[in-house]
Amino acid sequence: MTGPRALGVGLIGTGFMGKAHALAWRSAGAIFGDLPEVRLECLCDTPADKAAEFARQFGFARATDDWRVLVTDPAVDVVSITTPNSLHKEMALAALAAGKHVWCEKPMALTLADAADMARAARAGGTRTQVGYNYVANPAFTHAQRLIEGGTIGRIVHVRGWVDEDYQADPQLAWTWRARIADAGLGTLGDLGCHLVSLLCGLAGPVDSVLAEIQTVYPRRPLPDGEGYGEVENEDVASALLRFASGVRGVFMSSRSAWGRKNSLGFEVHGTKGMIVFEQERMNELRLYVNEGPRAEQGFRTILTGPEHPPFGAFVPAPGHQLGFNDLKAIELAGFLRAIAGGPRNHPDFEAALEFEKVIHAIARASHEGRRVTIAEIDT
Amino acid sequence: MTGPRALGVGLIGTGFMGKAHALAWRSAGAIFGDLPEVRLECLCDTPADKAAEFARQFGFARATDDWRVLVTDPAVDVVSITTPNSLHKEMALAALAAGKHVWCEKPMALTLADAADMARAARAGGTRTQVGYNYVANPAFTHAQRLIEGGTIGRIVHVRGWVDEDYQADPQLAWTWRARIADAGLGTLGDLGCHLVSLLCGLAGPVDSVLAEIQTVYPRRPLPDGEGYGEVENEDVASALLRFASGVRGVFMSSRSAWGRKNSLGFEVHGTKGMIVFEQERMNELRLYVNEGPRAEQGFRTILTGPEHPPFGAFVPAPGHQLGFNDLKAIELAGFLRAIAGGPRNHPDFEAALEFEKVIHAIARASHEGRRVTIAEIDT
Amino acid sequence: MTGPRALGVGLIGTGFMGKAHALAWRSAGAIFGDLPEVRLECLCDTPADKAAEFARQFGFARATDDWRVLVTDPAVDVVSITTPNSLHKEMALAALAAGKHVWCEKPMALTLADAADMARAARAGGTRTQVGYNYVANPAFTHAQRLIEGGTIGRIVHVRGWVDEDYQADPQLAWTWRARIADAGLGTLGDLGCHLVSLLCGLAGPVDSVLAEIQTVYPRRPLPDGEGYGEVENEDVASALLRFASGVRGVFMSSRSAWGRKNSLGFEVHGTKGMIVFEQERMNELRLYVNEGPRAEQGFRTILTGPEHPPFGAFVPAPGHQLGFNDLKAIELAGFLRAIAGGPRNHPDFEAALEFEKVIHAIARASHEGRRVTIAEIDT
Amino acid sequence: MTGPRALGVGLIGTGFMGKAHALAWRSAGAIFGDLPEVRLECLCDTPADKAAEFARQFGFARATDDWRVLVTDPAVDVVSITTPNSLHKEMALAALAAGKHVWCEKPMALTLADAADMARAARAGGTRTQVGYNYVANPAFTHAQRLIEGGTIGRIVHVRGWVDEDYQADPQLAWTWRARIADAGLGTLGDLGCHLVSLLCGLAGPVDSVLAEIQTVYPRRPLPDGEGYGEVENEDVASALLRFASGVRGVFMSSRSAWGRKNSLGFEVHGTKGMIVFEQERMNELRLYVNEGPRAEQGFRTILTGPEHPPFGAFVPAPGHQLGFNDLKAIELAGFLRAIAGGPRNHPDFEAALEFEKVIHAIARASHEGRRVTIAEIDT
Repeated sequence: MTGPRALGVGLIGTGFMGKAHALAWRSAGAIFGDLPEVRLECLCDTPADKAAEFARQFGFARATDDWRVLVTDPAVDVVSITTPNSLHKEMALAALAAGKHVWCEKPMALTLADAADMARAARAGGTRTQVGYNYVANPAFTHAQRLIEGGTIGRIVHVRGWVDEDYQADPQLAWTWRARIADAGLGTLGDLGCHLVSLLCGLAGPVDSVLAEIQTVYPRRPLPDGEGYGEVENEDVASALLRFASGVRGVFMSSRSAWGRKNSLGFEVHGTKGMIVFEQERMNELRLYVNEGPRAEQGFRTILTGPEHPPFGAFVPAPGHQLGFNDLKAIELAGFLRAIAGGPRNHPDFEAALEFEKVIHAIARASHEGRRVTIAEIDT
Repeated sequence: MTGPRALGVGLIGTGFMGKAHALAWRSAGAIFGDLPEVRLECLCDTPADKAAEFARQFGFARATDDWRVLVTDPAVDVVSITTPNSLHKEMALAALAAGKHVWCEKPMALTLADAADMARAARAGGTRTQVGYNYVANPAFTHAQRLIEGGTIGRIVHVRGWVDEDYQADPQLAWTWRARIADAGLGTLGDLGCHLVSLLCGLAGPVDSVLAEIQTVYPRRPLPDGEGYGEVENEDVASALLRFASGVRGVFMSSRSAWGRKNSLGFEVHGTKGMIVFEQERMNELRLYVNEGPRAEQGFRTILTGPEHPPFGAFVPAPGHQLGFNDLKAIELAGFLRAIAGGPRNHPDFEAALEFEKVIHAIARASHEGRRVTIAEIDT
Repeated sequence: MTGPRALGVGLIGTGFMGKAHALAWRSAGAIFGDLPEVRLECLCDTPADKAAEFARQFGFARATDDWRVLVTDPAVDVVSITTPNSLHKEMALAALAAGKHVWCEKPMALTLADAADMARAARAGGTRTQVGYNYVANPAFTHAQRLIEGGTIGRIVHVRGWVDEDYQADPQLAWTWRARIADAGLGTLGDLGCHLVSLLCGLAGPVDSVLAEIQTVYPRRPLPDGEGYGEVENEDVASALLRFASGVRGVFMSSRSAWGRKNSLGFEVHGTKGMIVFEQERMNELRLYVNEGPRAEQGFRTILTGPEHPPFGAFVPAPGHQLGFNDLKAIELAGFLRAIAGGPRNHPDFEAALEFEKVIHAIARASHEGRRVTIAEIDT
Repeated sequence: MTGPRALGVGLIGTGFMGKAHALAWRSAGAIFGDLPEVRLECLCDTPADKAAEFARQFGFARATDDWRVLVTDPAVDVVSITTPNSLHKEMALAALAAGKHVWCEKPMALTLADAADMARAARAGGTRTQVGYNYVANPAFTHAQRLIEGGTIGRIVHVRGWVDEDYQADPQLAWTWRARIADAGLGTLGDLGCHLVSLLCGLAGPVDSVLAEIQTVYPRRPLPDGEGYGEVENEDVASALLRFASGVRGVFMSSRSAWGRKNSLGFEVHGTKGMIVFEQERMNELRLYVNEGPRAEQGFRTILTGPEHPPFGAFVPAPGHQLGFNDLKAIELAGFLRAIAGGPRNHPDFEAALEFEKVIHAIARASHEGRRVTIAEIDT
């Protein structure tokens, strides 16, 4: 892990996703035997002592409180960006300009224009990028894709997807920056909905147009200081009817105010020979119905992921032993590292992720304008 | 059960729902001790010997192959109409004109205009009507309504519902009259979707307007005689975004081509304090999440219906012992009979059912015209 | 239903199972077109006005408060016995002596000796008997049997079963006659456990010997009058290790004090090629795993019962539409009536049921004597 | 991670559990901020080039093919033993003799005498030991323990547990060393059953005595070379009735030949106020029923683990985001490292694990001798 050719890693941010990146950087090489070596070179957070403390905990050699220092550090080859979304663009552009590979959390940016700038910069540069749509890395999901490609459920005709949490379900919850468009951009669409788009497009291909309805459940929330209320500018709930380029039709549902849903991200794929159902809250299960064999024995099968669903076996050689959320980040990182080492294109890079983010912006616009919006027309 | 004042019952039709009505007529009085007595007077089907055979099996005193004879029979006080939907209107109007109470299967008619005619005739007459939206009779459903009324999940903000079967999922299935608008009217909307409307309106009140997308998965099907193909004129799948008069927003999904779904009819009700989830394929269960008590102990509760959920106890005095589909018809009939005997208004009668059927026609129109359609504008 | 040759029915008891019998008597003929006709002749309960009231509700022609009158009534051909278990024997013997067919609820009697007397009397007589082990009538169960017979899961090697409720789980519950051996006989074994035996023997054949442990969770309960405590003489929980004559091994578990279990009666059948799992609280589902096809697609299938699982289709012609508890009694009755009419032997009659009841008494004895008990040695 | 006082780590074995240990060693410090630093010093496997290759992949500084060199290496402070079970004892005794802390996989040894020797040596030494009963580290499990301790389900009266897999379910599977007592010791009891004991004892305290039945489903298996058959000397299935010292009664079930079960390890805890149910195949869920609130709203709650269930939050700060199998090893390691650093006693160390392993040997003996066996009498 410390050879001369090892890739130097810089990590910006130490929150939820910062830790997830750190764990992935620490473990991916040991999980997958075929990855390029990495050196945990520098960690950035503010203030400096917090950065130093996390560098020690996460095993990074050095710490800084200046992300510009990190992204231009000659010893750093790859930059993980896990800061609040409003900061992604500036950091990513600077890192790309400095010739670094960039692993950025989703959504890429608050606005589609910003995300498009990032994708352009990535295309122009000679390095690899990766956006943290980690749920597409789940072996259960890639197995669903293989089943579809293999024709197991026939031709896809319809999809439905949902992504719900309850972190904004409590009416008493105080107002935060998440409620302000200037700081957070979209609401549930940007935070959760884009994950669902990454799954649905992975199943049914690119979206062509949408009809939509967004909803702010709690238009104002108590200010944290207890004095009055702040306005909630973005949506708590979003629903859409999707047309895919392939002709498939679909339904999209997302709420950040759905009591009881902790990480409910799932889909149904309706095919001419069968159906596939998935729910992230049971991320190691895939449900499959196929119109085969005697009717009296047909039913939805609950498939537990295992070594038959690569790369599950790199974690545990026994089926049913369960992967966790952080394992998805390790799989995501492995694809990114293989691409950096000259392997096949990783998924999704900035260019591919931009396509996902177009859809959530199209949904928001379709709702605001009360009409069908095509992806083509919002293409910047 | 054979006293002089017993209500004379006439049943038209002996198929799926004909048998369901017959069983309800035979059992409801024994299940519920408080119902008016009934006499199984006359059964109608064609040809005559089939009618006679079913009269014997179902315990009706007489048989006929002429429904006009039945609906005008002085010994008949109540008429069950379980024939193909295209025949409902003529039969119902004749029965109402003859002063009979009418229990008619859903949907009331193929067109909204016909359904409206039926509702008008019912309003004008002095008898009771009942439409077979049996799923609203489920104790699990009425308990969900009580939970909502009691504030258990706070204010309702969002609902989602689905109703899916797979009886039209097989591409090889031959063309039938179900595919022709003149014979069948709407597709999945008329057959399944209207049931979903009956549930969603029971949870969130009347619908105000819709955006929608319908889809014919198999535009043509092989003709039964093996020579060529017939056109499928109505929809296999329908999806809609609903606005309710109360301000609640919702999503509506229906497919008759959803492999693996046998009678999947369900909903999620999102409230400010909790959530309720139901699925008819597990019709004796209600799932409830409430934001109460320690977070570490919160979770969706699976409530098994029992005597605490009336009128379950009239069937079985022990919880978890399960009701079945036919039991729902007995509950439906009980409400109808109590209304006939002077009790409170039964639900849904022709007038209430018309409101449900407006919604499915609004969904179809919204899709065809590519715009938001209000219920008010389609009000005939 | 009132032809000259119709079977006259007498019903003793109007509680939980009395009503279930009444509903079955009223509906079975209409559900199944092939049954002999029946006449609801006489109902017995005490006091007389209660009997009269229930005769009216259930549609019986006459009422009595003297069961001896009923069982010797020349107009009665078949007697339903649904009284407390301690009364079964006397009533059944009298009915058999009078040449009646007898449908008796389970368990047959409080003691094995009494049950054996009943079986002997049945064998000696020329009439048919039926014991109310209704769960073996579930189409999901008989389908499990067909799967086993057809070799779908290979050779059976192991079974596990459980039957749990919570009606005696509350420590505050008052003492009742259920706690006294002289009145109730066995505890959970007699009330619930014998049902489990009926399923396990239907899957794996006769039991050969048992090791067991019974447990009284609450050795005393408050007396209803609030003065002091009454002793609980019989068991709340029973567990056993079973050896079947076939060499199959098994585990038996039963509790009447299992909080949250309302009617949890289920089993796992372990075969050399697959497994079948069933749970009565989801009585319309059968779970099946077969070692067939690609490993990556193997999983437990949840089969929803439907017309492919006879006689489901006699109730509803559409799959997934759900049967309920009372429907099981109608199926049970149909088998009994066909046997009365000269059809194949119904299951279980007194003789077959005696075999089930031997097992629960063997379990009790094995626990009391702290040793393996064979069924042969308790054979009276 | 490379400070002067960092603990030197030696790892023996690179299979399933070897990798799991390596990943835990790499990640635990980053997950938990409070652990002593570690240095991945030396990895042992045979042959030497395999050891070198895995040392590189797992990030160990050096490699050896001689475990005796590793356990006496002055730079090694802690030894992970993940070799076949028959080798544990010799390695552990040598490591303890060399003054090392030892983390050994379960079961400790093939025979109880060997395990007892290991526990004696651990007691005599001044170092810490840890046995890999990783399922007790699951936040869902420790939360179940907290619920019990807090009285949420009242007094525990009964427990049931199962642990099933299907890796020996296929009759065609070739004979391996796992089938020979001299190499593998017990069958399903040693491989799976001891995990179940670790859970049940964690819920209900020490076991007092057992009745049991073991079963070899496939007494012989084809030899790998295709010539004839090898005898299966140990059990495929084991079932037992348990008496705990506390008076609690229980049922124990285990099979390594249970088709469809991939890592099914679970329990039911029956209390006087409620019930807790757990299943490792859904390791992020805990099901809880409490007799509280209106009966009509009671039901099993499915609790998704999250930050409210420590130390879940050290992995992911959001509930429902799922831990995986390898995360359990990191939690296990954290407890071990804190104990090494002077913190509270870790669980289970050799002494505590010996108590678990006594139970599986008692079960085997009870079955062989056909009588109740007390734990006291097999105490070596």
